[in-house]
Amino acid sequence: MKIIITAGGTSERIDDVRSITNTSTGRLGHAIGERFLDNYSQEIDQLYYLHGLRAQPLEGTNVTAIPIEGVRDLEAELKRLLTEERIDGVIHAMAVSDYMVREVTTLEKIKSGDTTKLEGNKISSNIDDLTIIMQRSPKVIRMIKKLSPQTTLVGFKLLSHVPHEELIQVGYGLLQKNDCSFVLANDLAEIGPNMHKGYLIHRDGTCDSMENNEQIADMIAKRVWEETR
Amino acid sequence: MKIIITAGGTSERIDDVRSITNTSTGRLGHAIGERFLDNYSQEIDQLYYLHGLRAQPLEGTNVTAIPIEGVRDLEAELKRLLTEERIDGVIHAMAVSDYMVREVTTLEKIKSGDTTKLEGNKISSNIDDLTIIMQRSPKVIRMIKKLSPQTTLVGFKLLSHVPHEELIQVGYGLLQKNDCSFVLANDLAEIGPNMHKGYLIHRDGTCDSMENNEQIADMIAKRVWEETR
Repeated sequence: MKIIITAGGTSERIDDVRSITNTSTGRLGHAIGERFLDNYSQEIDQLYYLHGLRAQPLEGTNVTAIPIEGVRDLEAELKRLLTEERIDGVIHAMAVSDYMVREVTTLEKIKSGDTTKLEGNKISSNIDDLTIIMQRSPKVIRMIKKLSPQTTLVGFKLLSHVPHEELIQVGYGLLQKNDCSFVLANDLAEIGPNMHKGYLIHRDGTCDSMENNEQIADMIAKRVWEETR
Repeated sequence: MKIIITAGGTSERIDDVRSITNTSTGRLGHAIGERFLDNYSQEIDQLYYLHGLRAQPLEGTNVTAIPIEGVRDLEAELKRLLTEERIDGVIHAMAVSDYMVREVTTLEKIKSGDTTKLEGNKISSNIDDLTIIMQRSPKVIRMIKKLSPQTTLVGFKLLSHVPHEELIQVGYGLLQKNDCSFVLANDLAEIGPNMHKGYLIHRDGTCDSMENNEQIADMIAKRVWEETR
């Protein structure tokens, strides 16, 4: 079995020294990786661990760790792996930036319709109205099943302080749109130092409910293994 | 001797899951900390290591590590330490955000003069013209000598691809403005995997020139030790 786990957050560069980052710690993706290695090490031929720069390293025989900076890097690596190899499962836990930087300018320039660019590789530190215009980044998850229809795909949806029904509904929407086998839906309001509630939504609309990181990791590893065996 | 070393980059929150981050690895601040512990461990009563979330941990007897997220956290911790204790040296290697988030809005709202706020703790992922307006953050370095005049202060200036004379001039300006004893000036163009040129500017305008991380760490530890003994 060959699987890909993505973990942590992507970073989009603003200039040579600044970037916009998803604050994800990568704890969940890391825990899932460890669970696969603990429980199914015999069946894993290769585990590709695509991780953001802040995520914990994952070590083990048959683990190939690939550091990922921006959305474009993630897109390129996934495309390469999914076309060159037969990948049984993708657990896409990475918090991918929804936005990339389109332009760095000033409020005054926007209001006056001035489209000249700011100069330099590093933005000066004394601009009073620095303004960053963003654009939507490509939805990387969308291409996974198109490139590799037989792969078991697990998507992730993190929301912040929404009603439970909405969380499940949005998670199920993600599952349908991207042809996922499962989606793990979770809410920042239910995540703390010693708690991490998670709901693993299945294709038929049913849910597994978990109370912490370890239970989530356990369940996802088990469901993917059942699906791919 | 009690010293403070700041290392890594600060992060300013955009919403619950996104932030603007200085991409600093914290390698230099970490190396300076190690050098102090290696060469002057007998004289160090306490080393406060204020580090960004991505920076390498520093371990040792007498090391107190304090994680720092945003500029406001850094300001509060430094103020606390500098007023409660007698600090002999501050090596301020942290890449502090020049900008904090003022407002998250859209290009359309700016152009039409609409000042209503975007809703939610986490910004929706389907806005076509998301725009982040920034404001200048407080210059934390400026308060250090005001709070603690007897402290030896080392400032840092990182520029990107400027002529050597300009680098030294800008570094010396920082020294004068903030009453530093030394400023380490460096340029991204002279930093690579195995190279890190650095120029330690003194009050009299002279410079120590170094070729790599270890030499820089060595020189700074030595100069601070000479100044505070």
